[in-house]
Amino acid sequence: MTNTQVTHIQIDNYGPWTVTPEPRREVDLQTLQSRLFADLSQLFGNRDAYVFFTRFDNMIAVSNGVDLDDHALIQESVANRYPVTMSLSVATGTTPAEALGTATEQLQAAGSAQDEHRREILKGRVVDEEFRTDEDVQIAHFDVNDATEKYTDQLNEFDTFIEIEQGYAELMRHMRRAHDSLAFFVGGDNVIATCPELDEADYREAIDHVQETVGVELKVGVGRGAVAADAGITAKHALEECRATGDDVTIEF
Amino acid sequence: MTNTQVTHIQIDNYGPWTVTPEPRREVDLQTLQSRLFADLSQLFGNRDAYVFFTRFDNMIAVSNGVDLDDHALIQESVANRYPVTMSLSVATGTTPAEALGTATEQLQAAGSAQDEHRREILKGRVVDEEFRTDEDVQIAHFDVNDATEKYTDQLNEFDTFIEIEQGYAELMRHMRRAHDSLAFFVGGDNVIATCPELDEADYREAIDHVQETVGVELKVGVGRGAVAADAGITAKHALEECRATGDDVTIEF
Amino acid sequence: MTNTQVTHIQIDNYGPWTVTPEPRREVDLQTLQSRLFADLSQLFGNRDAYVFFTRFDNMIAVSNGVDLDDHALIQESVANRYPVTMSLSVATGTTPAEALGTATEQLQAAGSAQDEHRREILKGRVVDEEFRTDEDVQIAHFDVNDATEKYTDQLNEFDTFIEIEQGYAELMRHMRRAHDSLAFFVGGDNVIATCPELDEADYREAIDHVQETVGVELKVGVGRGAVAADAGITAKHALEECRATGDDVTIEF
Amino acid sequence: MTNTQVTHIQIDNYGPWTVTPEPRREVDLQTLQSRLFADLSQLFGNRDAYVFFTRFDNMIAVSNGVDLDDHALIQESVANRYPVTMSLSVATGTTPAEALGTATEQLQAAGSAQDEHRREILKGRVVDEEFRTDEDVQIAHFDVNDATEKYTDQLNEFDTFIEIEQGYAELMRHMRRAHDSLAFFVGGDNVIATCPELDEADYREAIDHVQETVGVELKVGVGRGAVAADAGITAKHALEECRATGDDVTIEF
Repeated sequence: MTNTQVTHIQIDNYGPWTVTPEPRREVDLQTLQSRLFADLSQLFGNRDAYVFFTRFDNMIAVSNGVDLDDHALIQESVANRYPVTMSLSVATGTTPAEALGTATEQLQAAGSAQDEHRREILKGRVVDEEFRTDEDVQIAHFDVNDATEKYTDQLNEFDTFIEIEQGYAELMRHMRRAHDSLAFFVGGDNVIATCPELDEADYREAIDHVQETVGVELKVGVGRGAVAADAGITAKHALEECRATGDDVTIEF
Repeated sequence: MTNTQVTHIQIDNYGPWTVTPEPRREVDLQTLQSRLFADLSQLFGNRDAYVFFTRFDNMIAVSNGVDLDDHALIQESVANRYPVTMSLSVATGTTPAEALGTATEQLQAAGSAQDEHRREILKGRVVDEEFRTDEDVQIAHFDVNDATEKYTDQLNEFDTFIEIEQGYAELMRHMRRAHDSLAFFVGGDNVIATCPELDEADYREAIDHVQETVGVELKVGVGRGAVAADAGITAKHALEECRATGDDVTIEF
Repeated sequence: MTNTQVTHIQIDNYGPWTVTPEPRREVDLQTLQSRLFADLSQLFGNRDAYVFFTRFDNMIAVSNGVDLDDHALIQESVANRYPVTMSLSVATGTTPAEALGTATEQLQAAGSAQDEHRREILKGRVVDEEFRTDEDVQIAHFDVNDATEKYTDQLNEFDTFIEIEQGYAELMRHMRRAHDSLAFFVGGDNVIATCPELDEADYREAIDHVQETVGVELKVGVGRGAVAADAGITAKHALEECRATGDDVTIEF
Repeated sequence: MTNTQVTHIQIDNYGPWTVTPEPRREVDLQTLQSRLFADLSQLFGNRDAYVFFTRFDNMIAVSNGVDLDDHALIQESVANRYPVTMSLSVATGTTPAEALGTATEQLQAAGSAQDEHRREILKGRVVDEEFRTDEDVQIAHFDVNDATEKYTDQLNEFDTFIEIEQGYAELMRHMRRAHDSLAFFVGGDNVIATCPELDEADYREAIDHVQETVGVELKVGVGRGAVAADAGITAKHALEECRATGDDVTIEF
C-alpha cells in the first residue's frame, strides 16, 4: 500500500512579477525558471526526493523523507538566492492524486497564486517516521519504443516532438483519470509517474490505451521504495530489463 | 515575408550516456538538462535569439542574427563545461517548419543521435547579412485566459496542468499542420510560437480551434522583427494590450 | 576541545585537462570552477557543512556531520554533471591543521594530482557519531573595521583589494603558524576561519599582529557547535554584536 | 601602446543585504556570489572580455569591445535573475590602473557602496571604435614553476595554499606599484594580469622580485590583442611555450 508524500511548490506572485514594471526578457525568465528547477532538483534530490518541473511556476515533488524543517531550509535557501520566493504545501495520501489534492487545497486556502501579500507559505504534514515503509512510493518509468529509429533519426524534430507530446498528453491524462497517478515528461522520450498500488495488468492497460488512442508505443519499468530515489533507480533498472527481454512491462518488486 | 533561421540543437549520444555504465541518478540528469538549457538560453539570448527546451536532449532555437562562428563558440563553450557535447544544424526557410525540416535533415545526414562516433557536428547556413529585414521573424505569445482564477486557484495542480497541457498539445499540433509554425510551452500558462507571415484571421482561427476541440480559451499578442528578441518583446507588449482591451488577438506591426 | 572533520577536495588531473588538446577559453574555466564550488557549497551546505573555494582545483570543507556515504553521493553527483571528476579525502583532528594534514597525506598516498590514472579517490574516516559534541567545531568570522568608509568609498578598487588581500595573507599565515587554524577569504572584507580551542586572548593577539604588521584593523565574532553551520551562524551574530558594542572580539559561547 | 577599457562592477548595498533582517546562511551567500561571477564571466566572455572575481561584491573586467548598450543589457539580465542589483562604471586609460582609477571614482561620485538609494548606476565611456587597435590589451599569464611537484603533492593543502597566496600577494602589489598593472589569482597556481606596454625586462624584473621576497618561482606568457580574449589565449599559448623551452618569460607578439 503506497503512502505518497507530495509537495506542491508555487512561486509567489510570479505572473505579475514577470511583467512589472515592464515585461521582462524572455531568455532571462527561461534561465531563471530552469535554474530554480535545477536547484530544487538538487535540494530535494539530496534528501532522496524527486521534483518535476511541471509548469515551472508550479512544481510537484514526491517528497517522502523530507520533513517540515527540511522544507523550511529549502524555502530559505531559495529566498537567499533568487529574486522571487516560493510557497510550499505538503500532504500525504494513499494515492498521489489524493495527496496533491490536499496539498493544493491547503495552499489555495492561504491565498491566491497572484496575491501580492501571500508569501512563503509553509503548510502541511509529512508521513510520520514510525509509519514509513518500503512500499510508500511506487515509481513507473516509461519510454517510447525505438524512439530514435522511428522518430528522431527520421522526422524533423518538431514532428518527433509532436509524437512524443501527443503520447505524453494521452498517458498523463489516462494515468490521472484511471489510476490516480501523476505522470511527468522528463526529457527525451521519457515519462516518470508516481503511482498508487498498481499491478502489471494496470500498466499493460495504460500502455494499450495510449497505443490505441494516439499510436505511440510505450514500455515501462516499475519500482518501489521508502523514498522516490530508491523507487526511481529500481524503475530505471527495470526499464533496462525491458530493453533486454523485449517485454513491455517489468515490475521489480 | 518571414525568413526564419532555425537551429536544431542535439546532445550527442545522450540516451546511451545516461545509462552507461549504470543508469544515472534522475535528479542529476534533470539538473544537467535544465542547466544546459539555461546556459543556451543565455548564450543564444545574448545574441538576440530565442531557445526552446523542447525535449531537452533536442532543442530548437530561432537564431536569426547568430552566425556560424557564433554557433561554433557556443558549441565550444558547452564542451568546456559539460560532460556531454552537442551538434548544431542551422537552416533558413520562408516558414519555420521548413527551416527546421532542413536543419534536422542535415543533422540526420551526418549520423544518428545515438551514433557514438558522431560528435559536435556544425552544419548549415544563415540568412545572409544583406538579405536580412525587419520582417524575418514573427513571434506569437499565447496565454490562457484567466488561468489563475479558473484553474490555479480552483483545481489541484495536476488537473490545472492537464488543462494547460491539453490546450498546448492541441495548439502546437494545429499551428504545425495548418500554419507551418512551431509552438512551445514556456511555463505557467504561456506558449510562444515562431510563425510565418500569418494575419489576424489565422490567429483567431487557431484560437477558435483550440476552444472548440479542448475547451481552453487563449489570447495572443504578435510581433515581428529582424531577430527573435525584438519580435518577442513586441509580442509580450501586444499580449498586455489584449489584457487591457479584452481583445483576444493583438498584432503589433 | 574541538574535533574538526576536514575534507580535502581535489579535481582529478585538472591542470592537464585545462590545456588538452589546446588551452581552453579562460572565461569557461572560470565559469566551470565557480559553479563547481557553488554546487559543493550547496551539497555540503545541505548537510550543515562549510566549503571554502581555496584554489578552486583544491578546496577545503569543514565536514562534521557528513559521513562517507554522503561524500560518495556528492562525488557521484559531480561526476554526473561536470566534465571532470573529484577525489575526496576525509580526516579528523584536535586542530583543523592536523585534520587537513592527515586528509592531504591520504590523498597524496593514492597518487599525484596530475596522475591521469588516479580518479575519484574516496578515503578517510569521520568523527564517530557517539563521540560528537557541541564543541567539535569553532568558527571565527573576521571582517575589516570600516572597510566601506576607509577603503571602498575612498580608494580605487584594486588599491582597496590590495589592502584587504595583504590583511588576509598576513592573518591566514599567522592563524596557521601560531594557532593551527585555517582561515579563508570569503568575499567583501570577510574572512572565516576554522579554529581549535582558542580563547579571547588568542583572537586579540591575532588581531594585534595583523594591525602591527600590515596596518589592517580587524574585528571578530566566534561561535561553536557540533557542525560548521551552527558554529558559523553563531559567529556571524557575534560579529554583529561587535558592531553594536564597538568591541573587537565577541565570543558567543 | 595599450588602451585598456576597465569596468568596475559593484553589487549595490550588498553588505547590509547580507545581514537584513538577519545574517543569511553563509553557504547561500557563497553560492550566490560564485554563480553571479560565473554568469558575468559568460556575459562578458561572450563579448570577448575577461572578468575577475576580485572581492565578489566588487569585480573588475577588462572590457574592450563591450559598449554601453552591452553593459546595460548585462545589468538588466542580472537584475532579472538575482535578488541583488549591480552598478557598472566603465573607463579607459593608457594603463589598466589609470582606467580602473577613473572607473572607481565615477562610481564613488554616484554614491556609497552601502547607500541604499544608489542602485544600478551605469556610467562611463568606452574606447571609440575608430581608435581601437590590436595593441589595446596586454595580458600576462603567470603560473608557479613545478607547483604540483614542489607543493601540491608534498605539503598539506593549506601550506601549499599559503605558498601560492604569499606569491600572489607579493606579485599583485608589485605589479600595481611598479607597473600600473592589475593582477588576479584565477585558481590553481595561476595569476592573470592586465598590463600596460611592458617588455621582457619588466616581466623578468617582476619574477625576480617575487623570487627574492617570498621565494616563489614564477614563469609568464604574454600576449596582446584588441580584446582580452585574443590577448589571453595568446598568453596561454606563450605560457605553454615556456613549459616547452624552459624559459621563464615568453612574449608572443
